[in-house]
Amino acid sequence: MAIWLDQASEGFEQHFAAFLTTKREVSEDVNIVVRAIIDDVRARGDVALAEYSLKFDGIDYATVPMRVTAEEIDAAVEAVPSEVLGALKLAALRIESHHRRQLPKDDIYEDDMGVGLGSRWTAIEAVGLYVPGGTASYPSSVLMNAVPAKVAGVDRIVIAVPATGGAVNPAVLAAAKLVGVTEIYRVGGAQAIAALAYGTETIAPVAKITGPGNAYVAAAKRHVFGTVGIDMIAGPSEVLVIADKDNNPDWIAADLLAQAEHDVSSQAILITDDAAFGKAVEQAVERQLKTLNRAETAAASWRDFGAVILVADLKQAIPLANRIAAEHLELAVADPDRLLDGIRNAGAIFIGAHTPEVIGDYVGGSNHVLPTARSARFSSGLSVLDFVKRTSILRLGPQQLRTLGPAAIALAVSEGLDAHARSVAIRLNLER
Amino acid sequence: MAIWLDQASEGFEQHFAAFLTTKREVSEDVNIVVRAIIDDVRARGDVALAEYSLKFDGIDYATVPMRVTAEEIDAAVEAVPSEVLGALKLAALRIESHHRRQLPKDDIYEDDMGVGLGSRWTAIEAVGLYVPGGTASYPSSVLMNAVPAKVAGVDRIVIAVPATGGAVNPAVLAAAKLVGVTEIYRVGGAQAIAALAYGTETIAPVAKITGPGNAYVAAAKRHVFGTVGIDMIAGPSEVLVIADKDNNPDWIAADLLAQAEHDVSSQAILITDDAAFGKAVEQAVERQLKTLNRAETAAASWRDFGAVILVADLKQAIPLANRIAAEHLELAVADPDRLLDGIRNAGAIFIGAHTPEVIGDYVGGSNHVLPTARSARFSSGLSVLDFVKRTSILRLGPQQLRTLGPAAIALAVSEGLDAHARSVAIRLNLER
Repeated sequence: MAIWLDQASEGFEQHFAAFLTTKREVSEDVNIVVRAIIDDVRARGDVALAEYSLKFDGIDYATVPMRVTAEEIDAAVEAVPSEVLGALKLAALRIESHHRRQLPKDDIYEDDMGVGLGSRWTAIEAVGLYVPGGTASYPSSVLMNAVPAKVAGVDRIVIAVPATGGAVNPAVLAAAKLVGVTEIYRVGGAQAIAALAYGTETIAPVAKITGPGNAYVAAAKRHVFGTVGIDMIAGPSEVLVIADKDNNPDWIAADLLAQAEHDVSSQAILITDDAAFGKAVEQAVERQLKTLNRAETAAASWRDFGAVILVADLKQAIPLANRIAAEHLELAVADPDRLLDGIRNAGAIFIGAHTPEVIGDYVGGSNHVLPTARSARFSSGLSVLDFVKRTSILRLGPQQLRTLGPAAIALAVSEGLDAHARSVAIRLNLER
Repeated sequence: MAIWLDQASEGFEQHFAAFLTTKREVSEDVNIVVRAIIDDVRARGDVALAEYSLKFDGIDYATVPMRVTAEEIDAAVEAVPSEVLGALKLAALRIESHHRRQLPKDDIYEDDMGVGLGSRWTAIEAVGLYVPGGTASYPSSVLMNAVPAKVAGVDRIVIAVPATGGAVNPAVLAAAKLVGVTEIYRVGGAQAIAALAYGTETIAPVAKITGPGNAYVAAAKRHVFGTVGIDMIAGPSEVLVIADKDNNPDWIAADLLAQAEHDVSSQAILITDDAAFGKAVEQAVERQLKTLNRAETAAASWRDFGAVILVADLKQAIPLANRIAAEHLELAVADPDRLLDGIRNAGAIFIGAHTPEVIGDYVGGSNHVLPTARSARFSSGLSVLDFVKRTSILRLGPQQLRTLGPAAIALAVSEGLDAHARSVAIRLNLER
């Protein structure tokens, strides 16, 4: 049973505010352990990696090489069912064509004064993509991270994946191969992040690390941030479905469960203007739970963090949605455009009853790496922009320097920076 | 005396590699202290802020209000010399007109299949700008942070500034007023970052925090990252000047010193193809040092981290510059465009001998908040993009869902996500 919040009831604001700040994850304090691992990998390189991989993942590099071989990748491609391979190809093509539109353009121009200004974009030279192990080792995530990097023009893309006992999910290897990524290492956890950031004898360092991971990976990313770039610290994910009564309750229930089955800390929220519809969805959730392989996870998520929010008019859902700032927002209403304009905070919006969020997870073309846990208030999903950087350009001639110089000198002097003032004054033959 | 590295000499690669990894700052481990302060501010709000401000900055909120008053801001504008105010206005206008060009455009389209896709940009609702106190309290930095936020359309911009004894640099207040920022709090350090991230009775929380600060501020930003967005963890800054022998050595020396005077951990590097010119610059540095107010700082920076790198041909400077990935790169050479194309890693490039980096600090129009300490390999200077976020949009009708649905189901099944598969299958009347 999810909680119910009725906007018409007294105390709604208080309950909604409390709901918003509910912590869905216990943040383990693993900083001390992580720091020690990072320091150790920096100091001892491959030897440290070998020890950690043996200890945590049961991989012995004496028998299974750290780097996945070309033969292994080719064998994985063979092992993946053709239906899945075809779906991965379709997904890769669609992701690529959408992300090509995100490539920023250089902007080099001269202003009225004759000053040359500009922004020039270049690709990051090398990036590392962390792929979680176990059940969260998703080939779709490989595409969602690697394709934008490829489109951006990144020269070297490296994958690190923990491989319990040595085995890597063949679909992950096949997805990597599809995008042309063949530098894949069997290493996970904080040690993988350290190796990517600082390099070891085998793994050359990268300039940026993307991809989700457990508490150790997240802490390690936070720690190396600055030495390398990172994408985001991913938190528990969520879906918000705004639905009117004209929906099939089973469709909406399935969408809520698609979110809930990810993790016990996932969150699925329904906002509707019809209590009977809300009840019907809730019943459908209970019914569908019975036939899910991940029923236990989904049930716990729905029980602990699921919510049905009742509003008098769907327009009232807009400010609530902006405060929730959901990773995924479905607008399953008759006139979605009436709501769309007011939505400011959301990772991705799925419009109309025929756009289940799951399409965006795989084959829509947009990215499924999205800001979670209310971070859509200040951040965006993964895109080509995460794999490029901008250099700004300034070009003055003697005349422009004469025009702008005195103002620069005045500010430098006021900030107490003599040498700053002089570097302009000396070119204008002014005393400084 | 800076160090000399000659590319023609044996062992150059080894020396250059060591030079690149030289640590210029002792990173104090202040995490435990910072975490305690953050927890305390979250728990006790204003009361905690008052205690920390009294303890660290000698401000008693019983006598000086936490929030700077409108009268105080107006008085500050009056107190700033008109020459400085005029320069700030010129700078603000130029920064605004350059940054307007960075506003990203929405991209909403339909693909061949009839799938609606899109990227929609919206401004972050509220941002906090941290302004350091003391000698590093720069009005120019207020403009460089606040103007892009304003251009982006941020509704609420807040400034936090430590005010030792209660006084805030009038030029900082004047710069804020120029941009229309009037919500300014006298609070600094980790406690300011905590207040901005989590809010107190007086300070409503923001969604993103930008601006430089000391080790405590940096650690606090790293800690709250995820709860709010942050810009970057700023490290010690640097300039790389590539200059041929036809330059005036005094001009180049002044540019190197303009960087060196910032901080003892700043770095100024000259690459030239003429040893005699390098010597002449070095002599000019020594000469000019004698008449700088911040001579001690500049001399220490030049002595400890300054470098002259000799190359046989200026073309050879390109790969070195890309490895250094300088925050500021001056191309003071006869044909700068010959080098420009090859530069991939730099925060900002200043072209030609009449574009000293200092112009970019103040009135060029480009942003002076730039990636330091080699982070130009993976990140960009501050821009309008730092104050907006992107929501992706997906819209399918029944026909598009029929076309794409089966591939999504295949991938969901292969990833073991039943409810994902069902959320598509149920809409297509398929058994799942």
